[in-house]
This record gives sequence, structure tokens and C-alpha cells, in this order.
Amino acid sequence: MNYRIVLKLIGKLLLVLAAAMALPLCVALLYRETPVPFFLAIGISLLFGFVLSGIKAPGGFFAREGFVAVAAIWFVMGVFGALPFYFSGWFSSYVDCFFETVSGFTTTGASILTAIEPLPRGILFWRSFTHWLGGMGVLILALALLPKLGLRTFHLMRAESPGPTKSKLVPKLSESSKILYLIYTALTAALVLALRIAGLPLYDAAVTAFGTAGTGGFSVMNASIGAYHNPAAEIIITIFLFLFSMNFTLYFLLLSGKIRQVLKSSELRLFSFLWFAAAAVLILDIRPLYETLGETVRAAFFQVATMISTAGFATADFDLWPSTAKMVLFLLMVCGACAGSTGGGIKAGRIVIFLKSIRREVQQILHPRSVSVVKLDGHALDEGTVRTALVFLVTYIAIAFLGAVFVAQDGFSFATNITAVFSALGNIGPGLDMVGPAGNFAAFSAPSKLLLSVCMIMGRIEIFPILVLFSPRTWKVN
Amino acid sequence: MNYRIVLKLIGKLLLVLAAAMALPLCVALLYRETPVPFFLAIGISLLFGFVLSGIKAPGGFFAREGFVAVAAIWFVMGVFGALPFYFSGWFSSYVDCFFETVSGFTTTGASILTAIEPLPRGILFWRSFTHWLGGMGVLILALALLPKLGLRTFHLMRAESPGPTKSKLVPKLSESSKILYLIYTALTAALVLALRIAGLPLYDAAVTAFGTAGTGGFSVMNASIGAYHNPAAEIIITIFLFLFSMNFTLYFLLLSGKIRQVLKSSELRLFSFLWFAAAAVLILDIRPLYETLGETVRAAFFQVATMISTAGFATADFDLWPSTAKMVLFLLMVCGACAGSTGGGIKAGRIVIFLKSIRREVQQILHPRSVSVVKLDGHALDEGTVRTALVFLVTYIAIAFLGAVFVAQDGFSFATNITAVFSALGNIGPGLDMVGPAGNFAAFSAPSKLLLSVCMIMGRIEIFPILVLFSPRTWKVN
Repeated sequence: MNYRIVLKLIGKLLLVLAAAMALPLCVALLYRETPVPFFLAIGISLLFGFVLSGIKAPGGFFAREGFVAVAAIWFVMGVFGALPFYFSGWFSSYVDCFFETVSGFTTTGASILTAIEPLPRGILFWRSFTHWLGGMGVLILALALLPKLGLRTFHLMRAESPGPTKSKLVPKLSESSKILYLIYTALTAALVLALRIAGLPLYDAAVTAFGTAGTGGFSVMNASIGAYHNPAAEIIITIFLFLFSMNFTLYFLLLSGKIRQVLKSSELRLFSFLWFAAAAVLILDIRPLYETLGETVRAAFFQVATMISTAGFATADFDLWPSTAKMVLFLLMVCGACAGSTGGGIKAGRIVIFLKSIRREVQQILHPRSVSVVKLDGHALDEGTVRTALVFLVTYIAIAFLGAVFVAQDGFSFATNITAVFSALGNIGPGLDMVGPAGNFAAFSAPSKLLLSVCMIMGRIEIFPILVLFSPRTWKVN
Repeated sequence: MNYRIVLKLIGKLLLVLAAAMALPLCVALLYRETPVPFFLAIGISLLFGFVLSGIKAPGGFFAREGFVAVAAIWFVMGVFGALPFYFSGWFSSYVDCFFETVSGFTTTGASILTAIEPLPRGILFWRSFTHWLGGMGVLILALALLPKLGLRTFHLMRAESPGPTKSKLVPKLSESSKILYLIYTALTAALVLALRIAGLPLYDAAVTAFGTAGTGGFSVMNASIGAYHNPAAEIIITIFLFLFSMNFTLYFLLLSGKIRQVLKSSELRLFSFLWFAAAAVLILDIRPLYETLGETVRAAFFQVATMISTAGFATADFDLWPSTAKMVLFLLMVCGACAGSTGGGIKAGRIVIFLKSIRREVQQILHPRSVSVVKLDGHALDEGTVRTALVFLVTYIAIAFLGAVFVAQDGFSFATNITAVFSALGNIGPGLDMVGPAGNFAAFSAPSKLLLSVCMIMGRIEIFPILVLFSPRTWKVN
């Protein structure tokens, strides 16, 4: 284990973080709020950043360093990103600040705030901006900004990049990262413009766009998107949540004119099917709650888009919806978006692999001597990829169940325990019952909040980098 | 698909079923209750049995016929086994009778009865006896009784035999079945004797032994085992539940003097660890509810034994226990007993394979070029076995979640929906909230009861035979 190189990398990331905090600082100054929390946070981050990035780090950077670095960096981002919240004095403990920041960077959107609106605009801007920064992965951001990290960035990319598909678009990784960030920024800008035209103030349009683009779900309103009573904005957000749930490599294919390949993607097809099927069930189930069919359809599609994309916005308190609607929304929380998107959950791509694996098992039962491979979009999948996807799925559920046992110590309901952990692990935000869209995570104890923060990070970096930490081989000196 | 041979096999099983009904008929006569329901049921079963078993069935019996036969036979056992209940007039619909019978044969123990004690003793005897018959698998029973079925019984055994381990003890399958049934019968007899000595009336000792041996959980008392207020009986049942949760091949090894091999079994080790770890957590959590430490320990161990063995007996209403205890019990429901036992759930053996698969994934991450195999008890596991176990685990959870969406139509709570389906699929019996130990399944709609019945059968025959039914290849004429 080459500790020095990991520390050096953390240092570089802290410099990026300090630079990112300049934007909310400007917002605070613009609204004549105190800039002190940001000055302090930037100062501390710069201090640690310069010290750590100055470390001389000879030796190699291999798989284990890559995985450890990814796990460490996500924790460090939470620790330092929490500083503006802490110095603002609006949060009751550092654990709460850490939870809120991890929830932001991991694009979860779970909050411990019981009242959001009184907070300063600069602080709320930072809160939503963490979603946008975390949306594409903080290391991809670093790769885009710092092209010459002087490491085998392949190992970093492999450790952080979500999903069973590859997000390497062009031979050079830093180029790939730049292209991804360009698409991401362009889509976000389009969304801000659309929300502005729909009538949202610029500030609200920007923070809502951050929450949508990162599929995070933090809003500056207690009642989330429902507070705007703006049907046009709801429809715009619904459409953009779909767009941000797609695998970003598909946009690259679109830009390269390979439309047919995009339409053939089995992951996109399954995702679209789940999207419309869930909306259809919801429309039938919640129809009696709304006056017009139009309102019903809008509410159903909005909630499907926000749950399956794992953003977690709300226009209605779906915890009061009928049982079937609630169970469908819970299932969407577990499923999540497409691999290579900004969304969380187990990812539609893994569900495709799982469904094809079932089919193969049945074939093997009927024809025991036949040899069959799992194909995805015309290519035979490597057995290792299939196996890793299956192990991931089981591990994901096992962690959620074990996590629910842990948070049960706080004595809340079965639905609260199960959905809070699935919500954290899938980077959604709300769950059911106490953590429903009208509730929040404030009542959990500090140990539960820390566990849920770990779950958010595990979900975001897709578990394995955390599991690697438990292997003694990782910590061997050489 | 060779339909004739499947029908012929169903006919033979119906003859076995009719013979089995003679025992509750005797009990009814003994207690001077009306024997009419049994006469009618036996008559109808014999009629169909003779007609079907007389079918001339040329042609082969291969994998697909084996799987279809297993799936069909478990349904047919439910349909015909329900007849005594139906003719007794104590049940409000045929769906209820079917649910109760499937719950019996699959050793689930979920009941739609709101009051058990008023029912005739013959009927309740049949209800519990189905647990004992289903415990080892109805086809293994047939193989033991009808040695010359004239088919490749290998395919039947493979389709019904639970778990990733082999239950072939000796080269001849019918001999293996006989040995398994001898062990099963001897253990049951020992249990009846022990319960009789502990002070239970013979009738209660017998029906409780059936529920324990099959890890079913039907009791003749509304308050289950708690009704006897008999600590000795509770301890005896706790111990025997552990014994019936063990892989029966281990008893065969024990009888052959291979004690060291038994102690080395990773499945038994993991199972024992889960057993004691869960009991320890429960003792800490429920200590304030009991006056003495002794009572606490007894209650904790009893409830652990009954949930992880998937019997589902109760001495206390654990739905009123603290959140942590409830979550732990829910987790035990999902885990279940050892493969090759009479218990259900996902089985400790598959958890062992899963844990070893995680370890391998981490190794592959750290050393991408290394080739590693998953070893179980010193032997390298075939990749197909590992893959099938992983696909099984994901499918199991997926079915439970989808089932919960289906039963949510009845409008009950999240905890009720989730635990009812996991309880049915794992063949446990009780769940939480409405289906807790003090509740029952009576309030579910007929479609939900049928779905839960299908889940019980799926859990019992371990899903794949049902999945095979959905493949068009299964139904091809040749």
C-alpha cells in the first residue's frame, strides 16, 4: 500500500474543493450574507490541500491504491465539504454537517434539516452545488480539471466509475472526462434556462438544476418542487430527470450520429419500460386523489422520474398515497437509473444482466450439456462481468438489510428502517414513514447518521472500494 | 414435453396422498368426530389417482419433465389436500382451504384461521400432518415408498432437492430416500417422546412434533407453543428445531462415524454462528421485557430457533418487541436453515457461497490477473454452482419485492406486505404487523392468498421449477 500517493491525491482533491467553494462564496457576497464560513472552509481546505499535495510520492499506483483513494476521497470530501455548514452555525452538530455534505456529494439528498427556508442563500447554494459536483463523480471532475495527475488514472476511473459498462469514450481518459463534463454542463445550462423561462427565479432555477442534474434532490424549499406550484417546471424537471438517468455514453454516441445504437441499448429499453410501466400503475392507483386526469398523470410521472432517477424531489407527500403506489416507488428506489448516469440504485444495466442470467439458468436446466453465454447489445459478456454484477446485487441487498438492523436501534418503524437504508444506499433521499417526503433524517441518532453516511458513499462508489478496505492484502506494505 | 408421464406421476402421488389421509381419518374416528370429510377426500383422491396412474406413458423422462412434474405435483397436493378442510365446513372458501394446505405441505405454517381451537381434532391433525409429509419433500416421500417408479428419478430428485448440496447418500436414489426418512422418523419419534415426558398430552405432542420436524409451525393452539406455559417443552422444541435445521446428510455422516467431517462443515458453522449471534442481540434487546434473565434467554433462543429454522412457532408476540429484535428476526426469516434440511429461506449454504464470492471479487480487484476458485469444505466449487446460487439469491429477493407490490393492492402496511411475502417465500409462517404471531393471513384478498400460495411453493421447490414453466422450450412437443 502506497499511502503517500493516496495522501497526495487527497491533497489535490482538496485544492479542487477549495476552488469549488469560491462559487457559493460569491453567492453569499451577492446576497450580502456573511462570507466568513466560506473563507474559513476555503482556508482550511487550502492549508491541508497544499501540505498533502506537496508530499513526495515515489512508487506505483495500482488497483489497491486506486480503490483506497476513491473510498478515502469521498470521505474527505464529506469532512471538508461540511466546514461551511459547520461554521455557519445553522447545524446542531458536526455529524449533522457531515451527513448533509455526504448526502450532497453522493447526490442522495437526504436532509437532517427540519426547516430549510430560513438558511442563508450562500449556504443553500453550496448544499445544492455539492450535488452537481458529485453527480459525475468527484474523481472524474478531478481528471477533467487536472489532466496531468501523473498516475495511472485508469485505476481511479475503474474504482469510481459506476456500473458494469465502460465510460471510456476516447483513448485518453482525461479527454473522456472533459467530454462527459461538457455534455453535463450543457444539459445543466439548458435546464436552468428552461426553468427560468417557466418562471422560476434565477437562484431557484440554478439550485433546482443542480439537484436535477446530479439526481440529488436537495431543494431550497421545505415542500420541495411542490412549493412552486408550477406545472411547467414540474414537466421540465420530469423530462430532464429522464435525460440525466441515461447512460452518458449514449449522448456521446448521439453526438457521433450513432442513433441506431442508442435506440438498441437494452439498458435504455428496460429503463424506459420500467419508467412507463410504473407510471401507469401509479396513475391507476392515485387517480382518486386528484381532481383531473391531467394532474394525476403529471404527479405520477413526476414521482416516477424523481424516484427511479434517485433524485428524490417531491411534489406530493407520497407517504400518504395508497399501499401499491408506495411499494412501486420503493421498488423504483431499489432499481435506480442507468449505469454511467448521475443516478444511483442498483442500475438498470445490472437488472438486464440479471434477467439474462435467469434465462441462461433455465436454458442450462433444460439442456444441461449446452454452453451458453450472456449477451448484451449483441456482444457476449465476459463471465467475470456477469459474476461481478450478481455478487454486487446480493451484496447491495445484504448491506441494506444489515444496515436496517443497525438503525433499528433508534426504535423507529420497520418501513422507516428499511426505506431509510435503501434510500441512503441508492442515493435517493426520501423513503417512507418518518423519512417520507414530508419528513427528514433529523431524529436518527449520531451513530445511525454516520452509518447512513457510509451507506450513501458505498452506494455512490458501488460498494467494492469499501469492501477492498476490509481485505488485509490491501494494507500490506508491499 | 411428455405430458402423459407427468400425469401418471401425479396419479401415483395422489394414491400416496390418499393413503396419508387415512391417519387423520383414524384420529377423527378415535375422537368420535365425523369421518365424512376424510372419506370424501380419500375417495376423490383415489379416483383421480387410479385414473391418472393408469395412463400409458411411453417416451422419455428428462430434465424438463422432472421440473414440470415437481411444480405440478406441489400444486396438485395443495388442491387435493385441501379437500378434508373444504368438506369439514370450517373454512369460508376453497381458496382459504388451498392456502392452508399449501402452507402445510410447504411447511410454511401461515394460517387464515382466526380461531384454531374450536376445529375438530382430526382436521387439525391433518393440518399438522401435512407439515410432516412436506418436510422432506413430497417426491422424496414417493421415492421412498414407490421404489419402482420406472423413471429416471435422478431428474425428479434434482428438481425437488433443495440447496446447492447433493442429497444423494448412496448410489441408489430410492435407498437414499429411505435412509433420509428413517432419520427423519426416528428424530420425530424422539421428539414426541420428549414432549410427552415434558407433560404435553399425546395428541399435542404429536402435532407439535409434526410442526417441529417439518419446521412448519402450525399449532393447535391460538397462542402457539406459548399456550402450554411449559418451559421444558419450549427448551425441547428449541433444541429439536436446531436439529431439524441441519443438513440431513450430516446425520448420515454422523451415523457413518465421520464426526470430524460434520464439525468442519462451513454451512453448519455459519448457521451456528448466526444462531448464537442473533440470540445474543435478542437477549440484550428484550431483557427489559422479562423479569428474570432465565426467561429472557429462553424466549430469545426459542424465537431465534423458530425463525431461522423457518418453523414460525411463537411463545411471545414478538411484533411487540423493540425494533432491533424485530429486524433481527426478519433477517433470520430471510436467511433460513441449512440446505438439505426441512427448513426454508435462502439457506445458510448459499450465504456461505455468497460470502466466499465477495472474497473472491475483492481478490480479483487487488490481483486482476489471478485466477481463483470458490472452495467449500476443501473442495473447489464448480463455477456453475456458484453462479446458480447467486442467481437464486437475486431472484429470491426480486420475487419477494414484486410479490409485495402485488399484495399491496389490499392496502395493508409496508411491514405487512414485505414480511408476508418473505414469510411465504421462506416457508416461515408469521411475519410482522398484521401477519405477526398474534395475527393471521385471513384479511388478505383471494388473489393475494393465491399469490402467497404460489410464493410458498416457489420457496419450497426453490424457484427454478416454476421459472422453467415460463420457458417456451419446456412446452415444445419434442
